[in-house]
Amino acid sequence: MANKKIVVALGRNAFGTTFPEQQANVQKAAVAIADLVEAKYEIVITHSNGPQVGMIQTAMTEFSRLEPEYTVAPMSLCGAMSQGYIGYDLQNAIRTELLNRGIYKTVSTVITQVRVDPFDTAFSEPTKVIGRVMTKEEAEEEEAKGNYVVEEAGGYRRVIASPLPIDIYEIEAIKTLFEAGQIVIAAGGGGIPVLQQGTKLKGASAIIEKDYTAAKLAELLDADTLLFLTGYDQLTLGAGTKEEKAFDTVHVAELKKYIEEGHFPASTTFPKVDASLRFVKAFPERKAVITNLNKAKAGLDGKAGTTIIA
Amino acid sequence: MANKKIVVALGRNAFGTTFPEQQANVQKAAVAIADLVEAKYEIVITHSNGPQVGMIQTAMTEFSRLEPEYTVAPMSLCGAMSQGYIGYDLQNAIRTELLNRGIYKTVSTVITQVRVDPFDTAFSEPTKVIGRVMTKEEAEEEEAKGNYVVEEAGGYRRVIASPLPIDIYEIEAIKTLFEAGQIVIAAGGGGIPVLQQGTKLKGASAIIEKDYTAAKLAELLDADTLLFLTGYDQLTLGAGTKEEKAFDTVHVAELKKYIEEGHFPASTTFPKVDASLRFVKAFPERKAVITNLNKAKAGLDGKAGTTIIA
Repeated sequence: MANKKIVVALGRNAFGTTFPEQQANVQKAAVAIADLVEAKYEIVITHSNGPQVGMIQTAMTEFSRLEPEYTVAPMSLCGAMSQGYIGYDLQNAIRTELLNRGIYKTVSTVITQVRVDPFDTAFSEPTKVIGRVMTKEEAEEEEAKGNYVVEEAGGYRRVIASPLPIDIYEIEAIKTLFEAGQIVIAAGGGGIPVLQQGTKLKGASAIIEKDYTAAKLAELLDADTLLFLTGYDQLTLGAGTKEEKAFDTVHVAELKKYIEEGHFPASTTFPKVDASLRFVKAFPERKAVITNLNKAKAGLDGKAGTTIIA
Repeated sequence: MANKKIVVALGRNAFGTTFPEQQANVQKAAVAIADLVEAKYEIVITHSNGPQVGMIQTAMTEFSRLEPEYTVAPMSLCGAMSQGYIGYDLQNAIRTELLNRGIYKTVSTVITQVRVDPFDTAFSEPTKVIGRVMTKEEAEEEEAKGNYVVEEAGGYRRVIASPLPIDIYEIEAIKTLFEAGQIVIAAGGGGIPVLQQGTKLKGASAIIEKDYTAAKLAELLDADTLLFLTGYDQLTLGAGTKEEKAFDTVHVAELKKYIEEGHFPASTTFPKVDASLRFVKAFPERKAVITNLNKAKAGLDGKAGTTIIA
């Protein structure tokens, strides 16, 4: 029998923005996960925390203005809060969907720290946009605090570093639950980024791209399938043009060629493609699948989405 | 050999209020836990979230004023965030303290939902004070939203229900990690209180007293020791008077008599005493220990604190 261990990465379309929106959207993710459970897959889930961590960061900043004894909450703390918040809604929705299908299975969320390298070049070239749109004055205030800011349509946004994940500290807990046949939600938002300083871990001012963390999780858990559930159907070149080319199955070498030619530049697509390549090329039996959130099972069966193989 | 499985409940003195304060205080808790690990105890930790959940709730309320598409975050969501936030600092501090002693052991936090009864009388008589001190106008605003408010020195505070825990949904995850010899932080702040509605769980506007949740955890995990780490040394009657009486070891029947006479009324002490009674009286081999955070090991050895037995 094929290895049925998979890591599922949920994108921001699985959550939405406001509280009721998230509660409604996680139900779609729950349907996708329940389909995979019925097909006997063993599952670890990771997810983005795009708007949520921005919301928490903004709220905490407002709080520190209100209560002067509080400093601004470090990004790492906001990340930890977002893991609790999203995990709660997600484990709940999956539990309900499984029970509705007569399946009893424990679903839980593990607060997860991920090691990043202080010498990662991402720290000197922050690229990840976070938080709400700011006025010029607010942007200058941020820069005065040592934070990076970019101008975009309608105002300014804060940008922070997006380093690569190099280790996952709670991996033994995740593995123990995974091997016990439970569903685990872990390393939400790419994990809480930390720098290792002797026996201590220090929160880093960064957001790890969750697609890379998903690949790292799959590697450490010895899963052989990495499943990205997104808002689009397939990897596509030249979408909307006469040369449009959608990929059903694509080999590493072919994909590498396209990347070298400058394809898949979008920040929503490139990390998935790059993380898939890094994961798949290590062992020939591995595969990565990029498919729509509502075509998870079909994606794994090769009937939808894009499958990336060595 | 005696059963070495224990549930440790950390009080608010293990955390403090601001971010740096919490990071400093969890180190004391980490020393206590590491002492117990060295003495070969297997440990599940639960903790209060007093000031933290209030902070998050206030911050989220401010955010909803700033971003009109957001409603005020329900208490259950704030509880989930506080579990992520406190668990992160706590698992980190324990990890470091263990490594400093040459011990490698995985420490993780599980986001935990706890079932409460919609007919619990606590819902009609809210008693748990939360959030910051409000002005009269703000208090009236809260009451107009259907929330309960009490007047106290310096202003008004919101109060919410504090129902009893009746089940823990993620217990299988906690048990799996516990039985694998790992350290688990679970049901922080008494757990996220939820009402069961068919296959769904609905967040309740409540805070469960963490001392009762600790006893429930110990019961479900088949631990036979429940350890409360607090800011004081022993259970004491008439502290500071000539009749002062501190308890080393006390039996259920004796303690019940004191409670009936009106002793231990304080909201900081009564739940610990009551939860200890409920836990201990079920099986004669069980014990509950109330001791100072810096005398954890001595407390379990009967050399400090108060031991409650059947």
